[in-house]
Amino acid sequence: MKAHVPPFLSVKPALLTTALLATFTMGAAFAQAATEMPSGEHASADVDITQPIKAIDKLESLKNEQKLSLSIPKFQHFTTSNGVPVIFVQTKQLPIVDVDLRFNAGSARDESIRKQGFGLASMVADLLTKGTRDLDETAFAEATEQLGIELSSAAYKDQFVVNLRSLSDAEHLDPALSLMSSIITQPRFDAQVLERSKAQQVLALKQMMQNPSYLASTTFSQTLYGSHPYAHSPYGTQQSIPALTRNDLQKFHDTYFVAQNATLSLTGDLSLSQAKQAAEAITQALPQGKPAPKLPNPTPIKQSKWVHVDYDSDQTSVMIGQQGYRIDPSAKGIQRGTDFSIGNEVLAGSGFSSRLMGKVRKELGYTYGIYGSMTPMQAPGPYTIRFSTRNEKADEAIAATLQTVNDTLKQGITAQEFKLTQESLINSYPMGFASNAGINGMLGVLNFNKLPDSYITDYINRVEGARIDQVNTALRDTLTPDKFIIVTVGKPDIAKKSQLQKLK
Amino acid sequence: MKAHVPPFLSVKPALLTTALLATFTMGAAFAQAATEMPSGEHASADVDITQPIKAIDKLESLKNEQKLSLSIPKFQHFTTSNGVPVIFVQTKQLPIVDVDLRFNAGSARDESIRKQGFGLASMVADLLTKGTRDLDETAFAEATEQLGIELSSAAYKDQFVVNLRSLSDAEHLDPALSLMSSIITQPRFDAQVLERSKAQQVLALKQMMQNPSYLASTTFSQTLYGSHPYAHSPYGTQQSIPALTRNDLQKFHDTYFVAQNATLSLTGDLSLSQAKQAAEAITQALPQGKPAPKLPNPTPIKQSKWVHVDYDSDQTSVMIGQQGYRIDPSAKGIQRGTDFSIGNEVLAGSGFSSRLMGKVRKELGYTYGIYGSMTPMQAPGPYTIRFSTRNEKADEAIAATLQTVNDTLKQGITAQEFKLTQESLINSYPMGFASNAGINGMLGVLNFNKLPDSYITDYINRVEGARIDQVNTALRDTLTPDKFIIVTVGKPDIAKKSQLQKLK
Repeated sequence: MKAHVPPFLSVKPALLTTALLATFTMGAAFAQAATEMPSGEHASADVDITQPIKAIDKLESLKNEQKLSLSIPKFQHFTTSNGVPVIFVQTKQLPIVDVDLRFNAGSARDESIRKQGFGLASMVADLLTKGTRDLDETAFAEATEQLGIELSSAAYKDQFVVNLRSLSDAEHLDPALSLMSSIITQPRFDAQVLERSKAQQVLALKQMMQNPSYLASTTFSQTLYGSHPYAHSPYGTQQSIPALTRNDLQKFHDTYFVAQNATLSLTGDLSLSQAKQAAEAITQALPQGKPAPKLPNPTPIKQSKWVHVDYDSDQTSVMIGQQGYRIDPSAKGIQRGTDFSIGNEVLAGSGFSSRLMGKVRKELGYTYGIYGSMTPMQAPGPYTIRFSTRNEKADEAIAATLQTVNDTLKQGITAQEFKLTQESLINSYPMGFASNAGINGMLGVLNFNKLPDSYITDYINRVEGARIDQVNTALRDTLTPDKFIIVTVGKPDIAKKSQLQKLK
Repeated sequence: MKAHVPPFLSVKPALLTTALLATFTMGAAFAQAATEMPSGEHASADVDITQPIKAIDKLESLKNEQKLSLSIPKFQHFTTSNGVPVIFVQTKQLPIVDVDLRFNAGSARDESIRKQGFGLASMVADLLTKGTRDLDETAFAEATEQLGIELSSAAYKDQFVVNLRSLSDAEHLDPALSLMSSIITQPRFDAQVLERSKAQQVLALKQMMQNPSYLASTTFSQTLYGSHPYAHSPYGTQQSIPALTRNDLQKFHDTYFVAQNATLSLTGDLSLSQAKQAAEAITQALPQGKPAPKLPNPTPIKQSKWVHVDYDSDQTSVMIGQQGYRIDPSAKGIQRGTDFSIGNEVLAGSGFSSRLMGKVRKELGYTYGIYGSMTPMQAPGPYTIRFSTRNEKADEAIAATLQTVNDTLKQGITAQEFKLTQESLINSYPMGFASNAGINGMLGVLNFNKLPDSYITDYINRVEGARIDQVNTALRDTLTPDKFIIVTVGKPDIAKKSQLQKLK
């Protein structure tokens, strides 16, 4: 794990341009370093008062606007000689390439290698970029720095992602691809480095256990998923990390870092044939192996439950939610996802005009922000509403939240909310294509989840073509507030008097 | 201030694409929400062991490579009718526009409006996107959401930045520009909203005071800058925030949000004449006003000083540094900045092979990461080295750090370090152009600081043309370790036994 360094202090070679400029941009903020929040960042806007009628007219007129013209980049598909599916988007503005290699191997696979081996995938991610069979940590870092590349790996619950960004000319790209290939096929897993990383991870976990948001998250996962692999944190625990061995890391690697378990995405200044060569260079040394087995279904939650964690603070952190849905690449599944996301945007989106914001923030003033979101995964992912509030108001804020969800499901969203949300989703869609990394991330997601191109290319059509009744149905079919798990992290004396005691 | 919400939960309309995809991308990480660190992200790389000789040959061969071909976008300059300097870069891939408006008005100006009015600029930034004269908070947010735009403002020590991202067709852009114009010329500064924001800010400050990094930063600034405006945190204090009034905000606005104090940058899918119209639309209602006065020079630090803050943790957070240099747009100043940045990359860059990493992390194992960086500002900005270490090792780690700095100044960097760093800086430079927001941020920086285009366009030439003796001179001329301020945040009993007592 990496010590937290604010971006403008972290002058990585590969980030130099940014750092160089950030020095000036953010310069004035140096004392806001580390974990400080940016000073007053807010997203919203207004109509020019010097011409209110004109401007408002324009907003109204958007309802009849012609269709947004957005040329979505062309997705090219091919398969490497050992069967890894590849998606490639050619971009020509810059001499760079972004690579996104994903394995179906996250922390959900930790226990497949070692019982209670929580944090294993995360430790593999940590060690992966710390040397290869032939190069120790230092030699490896020097090679990367000289090339000016960014090579990183990260483990999530469902996925293991390796990213590379490099210059696209062969002179730079070839050695960069060699480096990437060697970390995934011949990682060093140096015993000394592992011991250091384990010690750091334990220390980091100690600190995280003092963080109310982390406490809420881990408690929520455990309560929602019980014995399912999604129950535990990818970071592992202070107990599990010390037990991990080099052999565990190697076994995790050998099991999951195989062609049958991989997907690859490329974005950048390459021809199709160069992209094919690059894909071969990355994957050719991967053994065939087997795809990771399907994850089990979590045990459904039968009834609402409240779990409280004592924490000494004026604020209570609240997480409320349920098991949601899994990723469904069928046309029906994709449309349902879009329908639900429109409905949830009205109910719990981060927009200021969501119903939960309207009730819990604006009307009652219990919190500064309240947001709810669905995280589709391979097995049913979580739906989670989060906020924090003063300890004394936690009970009332939770009651108001549940009431708002119930009311929304019962009454449905209104035609006006529906239309506003449609417009807002469509108008903001093109922003996602404004960076190479953004585009490549989309490809990675598409590829890993075996989603059709239309998941991205037809998004605007799906939002435009959505019907309010189906949006309301998607909300009702998905959300089950009478079975919500509620987690609170806050003062014990307040919790003792809580109305939620009956759900314990 | 905004409650911290992880990106994939923060489903802002304008961020929908990202959020939609992040749902899947990061999905597996949901229990890593909030302030958890990403699981095992590391940047480094290696040579493919299957072809070690070839790959290493390639790395070696980079030394003779031909010049990097990077076509830097064309910067177009013009001035609005009321004198605001504008830089514009046309991009055609996406129907979007990024706008960056900067005022010479950060927290360094807080006390120009109210004695001890710390946090004023930050509060203005907070309120700026919460309504205009004619639209209250809700109506304003709805207008923004419908347009799908991102409109944000932030206050740093030196600068006040307002950013807009919108679709580029007139139907969307015109009302978006009207909204932007109205927030900067007719902000609402609603009294009720202000009271709520003040309460939130005080609460946030309470929490920040429990954060060792924040404690280190604020203590460091205070010690380094004394009575200079850079001494205080842009966030203000628990004492200063409650005293701020609507009138203070209005006065800050009226004084600094004027044409003479503004610079504007645009990147996106507009013709030059459309860019000129857009610039007019944003700035035409700004009064002329006066440029902000020059900031005073901070009192130079005459001798080294140690300040300790008691904090109950196993780790000590350390900040070491000095007053550095100011932004200097002359050719000489720019070359010196490049020279220093090469030298500092060798000494204290975030690259794994920096000297401080080599000594304090790799050889002594006292810390996981140690980084030093210069932040040029209008008045001399800070140079800061940061790390954290076990309490018992703080003394030795600080001694090793100072020794490494002194040795580097004395002996100079080596030809090999110099060459590796040159290559690494050059190879990573193009990455900074990989997003529209990145490009527009560069323009904003250039424009605000009156830097010539060559600051960006000639960067590679400056790095290539640098001379090792001048790099060493820049290091020696800049760094004065015998006058370094040292701040430690950690256990009191360890501090009492510290060798640093003599610097108290």
